[in-house]
Amino acid sequence: MSRLDSFIRRMSAQRDCLNWSAGALNGVDGPVLELGLGNGRTYDHLRSLFPDREIFVFERRVNAHPDCIPDQAHLILGDIFETLTGFAARLPAGAALAHADIGSGDTELNRQMAVRLPELLAPMMTPGGLVFSDQPLSHDGWRPEPLPEGVPADRYFIYRT
Amino acid sequence: MSRLDSFIRRMSAQRDCLNWSAGALNGVDGPVLELGLGNGRTYDHLRSLFPDREIFVFERRVNAHPDCIPDQAHLILGDIFETLTGFAARLPAGAALAHADIGSGDTELNRQMAVRLPELLAPMMTPGGLVFSDQPLSHDGWRPEPLPEGVPADRYFIYRT
Repeated sequence: MSRLDSFIRRMSAQRDCLNWSAGALNGVDGPVLELGLGNGRTYDHLRSLFPDREIFVFERRVNAHPDCIPDQAHLILGDIFETLTGFAARLPAGAALAHADIGSGDTELNRQMAVRLPELLAPMMTPGGLVFSDQPLSHDGWRPEPLPEGVPADRYFIYRT
Repeated sequence: MSRLDSFIRRMSAQRDCLNWSAGALNGVDGPVLELGLGNGRTYDHLRSLFPDREIFVFERRVNAHPDCIPDQAHLILGDIFETLTGFAARLPAGAALAHADIGSGDTELNRQMAVRLPELLAPMMTPGGLVFSDQPLSHDGWRPEPLPEGVPADRYFIYRT
């Protein structure tokens, strides 16, 4: 499989999982947390799926398409390990969805993410919420969700909080 | 349609068109020209489709995955308007396929490309070869090819030389 094939599979898996989440969060209130804005494509998809929810985006440095940049109140700039910590107090009822597409080519950084991210996110999520990640995460209170049909295993990870 | 949807469509259209080209060039000899290496995904796909053809890549500055960088003999660095001109002499029998995924957000640059690229490429192509582009191109000797089934119109343009 070429890198082009593999990339299309990964993007499609992401899209299919996000689309599935819209139904899977029926009846679960709360905003959406997008960790990493990147080019803004996923953010654009999230706001099309969740037009009635607030979406807070955490990003170190914005480098997205101008149409895909949240307003200042919904864009939290800085190192997510620091900004997430301070943000928890602003979400007393918790978030419904956290989307963390933050894996990089840096294996050590990925390993740190996989350990620290669940600790940071867990107190910010509402019961019955969803955490999406391109890396496997582990937390006692989280239950892995089966992936939507057709999504290859190990491309995406979904947890119910 | 979100930007994520649109992006997946564009990548899939590109892949479907490239896959189609492998059969459509049966019996047409010649190397492949890749204008713009980018992240190297398309190059990786081209070499999986055409393992027995030389692939020459034209790029201003390499910023691709290390596994997707051609050897020095097949990587032509510089402004493609200059490097293509000089390269024609190295292909007396012409190229079978030229792939130009070079559209940018810069409308004026796209317009220049659409005018100058056919002039530069036409003398480098073998009769019966194919030119792929993400922008519409026009040249007297070129015939537009119908897009493979399922590829949305105006996402991709194919010409038989």
